[in-house]
Amino acid sequence: MNNGKLELHPNRLFPADSKIRPIARELYKEIAKLPIISPHGHTDPKWWATDANFGNASELLLKPDHYVLRMLYSQGVPLESLGVGNSEIDPRAAWRQFAEHYYLFRGTPSRMWLDWVFAEVFAMEVRLSSETSDMYFDKITECLARPEFRPRALFERFSIEVITTTEDPLDPLQHHHTIRESGWPGRVITAYRPDSVIDPEFEGFHENLNKFSEITKEDCFSWKNYLAAHRKRRAFFASMGATSTDHGHPTALTADLAPTEAEALFAKVTRGSFTQAEAELFRAQMLTEMAAMSLDDGLVMQLHPGSFRNHNAKLFDKFGRDNGADIPMGTDYVNALKPLLDRFGNETALTLILFTLDESTYSRELAPLAGHYPCLRLGPAWWFHDSPEGMLRFREMTTETAGFYNTVGFNDDTRAFLSIPARHDVARRIDCGFLARMVAEHRLEDWEAAVLAKDLAYNLAKKAYKL
Amino acid sequence: MNNGKLELHPNRLFPADSKIRPIARELYKEIAKLPIISPHGHTDPKWWATDANFGNASELLLKPDHYVLRMLYSQGVPLESLGVGNSEIDPRAAWRQFAEHYYLFRGTPSRMWLDWVFAEVFAMEVRLSSETSDMYFDKITECLARPEFRPRALFERFSIEVITTTEDPLDPLQHHHTIRESGWPGRVITAYRPDSVIDPEFEGFHENLNKFSEITKEDCFSWKNYLAAHRKRRAFFASMGATSTDHGHPTALTADLAPTEAEALFAKVTRGSFTQAEAELFRAQMLTEMAAMSLDDGLVMQLHPGSFRNHNAKLFDKFGRDNGADIPMGTDYVNALKPLLDRFGNETALTLILFTLDESTYSRELAPLAGHYPCLRLGPAWWFHDSPEGMLRFREMTTETAGFYNTVGFNDDTRAFLSIPARHDVARRIDCGFLARMVAEHRLEDWEAAVLAKDLAYNLAKKAYKL
Amino acid sequence: MNNGKLELHPNRLFPADSKIRPIARELYKEIAKLPIISPHGHTDPKWWATDANFGNASELLLKPDHYVLRMLYSQGVPLESLGVGNSEIDPRAAWRQFAEHYYLFRGTPSRMWLDWVFAEVFAMEVRLSSETSDMYFDKITECLARPEFRPRALFERFSIEVITTTEDPLDPLQHHHTIRESGWPGRVITAYRPDSVIDPEFEGFHENLNKFSEITKEDCFSWKNYLAAHRKRRAFFASMGATSTDHGHPTALTADLAPTEAEALFAKVTRGSFTQAEAELFRAQMLTEMAAMSLDDGLVMQLHPGSFRNHNAKLFDKFGRDNGADIPMGTDYVNALKPLLDRFGNETALTLILFTLDESTYSRELAPLAGHYPCLRLGPAWWFHDSPEGMLRFREMTTETAGFYNTVGFNDDTRAFLSIPARHDVARRIDCGFLARMVAEHRLEDWEAAVLAKDLAYNLAKKAYKL
Repeated sequence: MNNGKLELHPNRLFPADSKIRPIARELYKEIAKLPIISPHGHTDPKWWATDANFGNASELLLKPDHYVLRMLYSQGVPLESLGVGNSEIDPRAAWRQFAEHYYLFRGTPSRMWLDWVFAEVFAMEVRLSSETSDMYFDKITECLARPEFRPRALFERFSIEVITTTEDPLDPLQHHHTIRESGWPGRVITAYRPDSVIDPEFEGFHENLNKFSEITKEDCFSWKNYLAAHRKRRAFFASMGATSTDHGHPTALTADLAPTEAEALFAKVTRGSFTQAEAELFRAQMLTEMAAMSLDDGLVMQLHPGSFRNHNAKLFDKFGRDNGADIPMGTDYVNALKPLLDRFGNETALTLILFTLDESTYSRELAPLAGHYPCLRLGPAWWFHDSPEGMLRFREMTTETAGFYNTVGFNDDTRAFLSIPARHDVARRIDCGFLARMVAEHRLEDWEAAVLAKDLAYNLAKKAYKL
Repeated sequence: MNNGKLELHPNRLFPADSKIRPIARELYKEIAKLPIISPHGHTDPKWWATDANFGNASELLLKPDHYVLRMLYSQGVPLESLGVGNSEIDPRAAWRQFAEHYYLFRGTPSRMWLDWVFAEVFAMEVRLSSETSDMYFDKITECLARPEFRPRALFERFSIEVITTTEDPLDPLQHHHTIRESGWPGRVITAYRPDSVIDPEFEGFHENLNKFSEITKEDCFSWKNYLAAHRKRRAFFASMGATSTDHGHPTALTADLAPTEAEALFAKVTRGSFTQAEAELFRAQMLTEMAAMSLDDGLVMQLHPGSFRNHNAKLFDKFGRDNGADIPMGTDYVNALKPLLDRFGNETALTLILFTLDESTYSRELAPLAGHYPCLRLGPAWWFHDSPEGMLRFREMTTETAGFYNTVGFNDDTRAFLSIPARHDVARRIDCGFLARMVAEHRLEDWEAAVLAKDLAYNLAKKAYKL
Repeated sequence: MNNGKLELHPNRLFPADSKIRPIARELYKEIAKLPIISPHGHTDPKWWATDANFGNASELLLKPDHYVLRMLYSQGVPLESLGVGNSEIDPRAAWRQFAEHYYLFRGTPSRMWLDWVFAEVFAMEVRLSSETSDMYFDKITECLARPEFRPRALFERFSIEVITTTEDPLDPLQHHHTIRESGWPGRVITAYRPDSVIDPEFEGFHENLNKFSEITKEDCFSWKNYLAAHRKRRAFFASMGATSTDHGHPTALTADLAPTEAEALFAKVTRGSFTQAEAELFRAQMLTEMAAMSLDDGLVMQLHPGSFRNHNAKLFDKFGRDNGADIPMGTDYVNALKPLLDRFGNETALTLILFTLDESTYSRELAPLAGHYPCLRLGPAWWFHDSPEGMLRFREMTTETAGFYNTVGFNDDTRAFLSIPARHDVARRIDCGFLARMVAEHRLEDWEAAVLAKDLAYNLAKKAYKL
């Protein structure tokens, strides 16, 4: 029965098989301590700029974690009771709600990440439950008040070699500036995420263009100057360390319109009188424009398509974006990417990293595309698929067609800073298990698996993202 | 070589791995004998109402089993030779056809279910084959004549705590009434399956509405009264034990029309002059109407979309519905369910259980939806996917996003009464194997797996279906 | 570390599990040496007609292998540097490019096939790498000059019982004729692949019809005579050993138009003024026409849909067809095949073998269709999915619904002659591993698995293709 002890088993996530597990353990041993390359994510640069203490357990670990919120909500826990959109909730009471429902996370990656944080960061020795809820809340909150739990100290403790945040072109990058000026040696860089000034359906698009004009001193309602503004702003982001751009579109559609057509379309979307199809076409055109700019300035492109954002209308009205109601959709790449690939697909100087939420495209579209076009690489298993089974499926369904070298290592893609090492650790363990199976089945030599383990954990991300 | 012995191995279906199998066996030991909760299926209530002996082997085990018919037919065995639509066939000759082709079922769940029935129910010790065909036919037919093989006796022998049948609103539920009056304590309840009076493309839709009017004493050609008739009839079904409704639609489309639009659409479909798209829209609207009624009367909704019914036109003309020619189609949920979810998605008092025949939706759509919306739960692997590999894929592709607690345990979904314990046993074994792997990989504690094994085998179905 | 030795482990590709592996090895032992039935592929009959020596390593193993070309190209290696469209490249230099990048193939089937060729055919004992590149090139080129490496000698050494090539109706089948006349007993037969005279969008379609008229002495611009020409040409192919036809269409669409409609459509496409949709409809109609002819002449039909051919426009302009830029697309079968199945689905005398590049259709569409319609069979995992993981997924996702006996054994589908035994060996090992797992999990008896192993490796292909 439940003794309630919390222990992270050294063999966790390795296949149980007695031939495979020892190989996995050996492979893992050599890479477990490699520094973390985090080339894509959503941490807040303010943390390292100000190096202020984090607040309490709920504020840090519960409220910003949409994986956790969605599961609790799915089982009837009101978001307000967790402190979302409700500053009157006692954080201790919110934490209790979480603790009481912690059993819901059995079998999920959230549980694995959180247990790692509890055990490794906060030295907990018993599991989170109703009984231990207050103890957890107090101990975590006390820890967070100490200097060794401040953002820079944790950054160093976690062996982070470089971390990339994601900012809007309208962001002044003040925090990044502060970090650079501070003399602190931690490498925190930005990435250019221009959805707010590219997507005509984005909240406040017109106003965003006004601001974009101001910030770039270009008239962003003229097509030519709008493009120039992007070029300027990309250069500014690059000067603050950026090596990549990121694009979160509903689909992977690209377009390659004649300049006059593109200009006419731009006029339409900026006037605000456009159809859904025109908005879609404009986003599509902008992906190709961004690729053209990447060829000039060297920024690596990332495309994250296929999420139906804010699916739950009532929840969106109440709490706004990013509260757990984004749902994947079927996504086409083969037809959608063709216009961009027709123009730039054969460029070895361009890198376009593709992500998906539609696993049926791994073996059908993504691996065949990335296994052919020089500009394409496959991002790791994303979001809902950033999980042990999801990662395994990614390797099983892409490797035989695209190989390992058309993939780019791991992204933690998170704002949950404390779980970053746990996430990389899960990826490293799963990859070592996958490689170990290939060795045990005599499909790879042991020395090759050792090379690959290091490539997947460290080298490929560094190379693909030019870090 | 073939010694032809029939033995059910105690370790069957457990993973072979020497670390995982003992854990699976331990987990299974504790749940193997739990009573059967069968919340969705197609058994005939007449069996328990009359408690008459079943007929012969072919009549009971061959003719009504569309899994068996479809495989035999696919390899050139005429359905007539099996007794379908052909009462002149000697049942013993039909059984011989089956026995001769029994090797076709290697690797299929049908073989596993049937072998269980042969070994456990009829104490067979040799395999079914041409040589043993007559012996099987005779022995089974003899057994069926005995009192301990009558429906109620088997119900008790199988440890069935509750079984749900599925009836049309036009069904008088006479058999259910008889069972209740009989004093026999077996719990056999009905479920409300209104396709025949909701789907304008259903055979005899207009005539069905006439009968619906009669039986409910409402004018079912007026929109308001038609809805009232549903409410009345649902209440009657509930009074006969029903705790759920079931909806078998071609797609998962839902709609939420303004009342006047809905009424106008109803007028069209009842006049019989409607397009396919209007029929689809009406079905879509009715799902939302049913959800509204469920919020009032508490009946749990089940949605079984995505089957192309009667795909084989010639076979349908000859033998009618349900003769093995239903084929799954790609199914969208994310867009299709939005209208219903926009209205009722956040209701914790509603339960809508989703099924699919399109496994690509498990990780892409269903787990993310059920892992967010309070009203949604995932039904188990359905129909073609109610199989060892199918169940494993279901767990592997849904658990990490939806957890275990947004699923509802097992449905046998069958009219093959004798195989019901075998089907639950397969599900229990596969779930225990899945849990055992998670324990062996240190992703779950052993005591948690024990709790989950019982939840998956018994508690979740009871709770989700309010049994 | 890398000792660079090349050894083919006798247990390669068998599951590592200590219970499963010995069973797999036993099963494999009994079938490893069975003759090769190669019922579908793209080898050149000229090889066996002339029995001329193959040229050098690059010419034989590198330039014609589009799996290899696509991977090298995806990582920035120019096709010209490999000798594609560039006869000035020194084949030794091209081979060096390949050798330097051979690490890219880790984890891919190409690596497994090539290592087999290197070790088994050319007795290499060290791995291919920059260091061993010249040694490889020299040794292979020397071998190829010897009589025991000539096509007929290799054919015999490889234990090929029968191999099928694929020819266009316009092909005079001169090489097949020569082989037959030569007295050499090797069985090399053709297959009828009429895409060039069926697909209105095929390069040179109109001119192809001119040639088709000449060769058949029918006026192929009249619908009636066009059909007669096909019948004649199919008969000629059959007289040269053909037992099958093959159809490579963008989709699986079929149609069953009234004769006058079909004739009108034919008039349109032969006039050259047709829409994409009309071209698609004509191909669809022709599948049904081909099925009608198959019912008469007994040729087995194969359908290979779902490839977006020549996706890379620039590469196609430069190097033409078949240079690694074909990409799979999502493919529908359930609706697409209905017209053909409505007409011929219930014919036991017709065999239509279905292939797919869209694995999501295995369990959703293909297994349910093949598990019902008497005319349908499932071809093996195709192209990108002809790989260890791909084959496993095929068995895991089709067997429970379609069984083993609605599948047709293995196709190597290759022009890479030397790798044919390696490809069959991979399939045999994977199937034995799959069967062994079923035995270890007590889902099959050991003697049944032994029967199945032989069926999958040899009997099913022979039977399905009437060889």
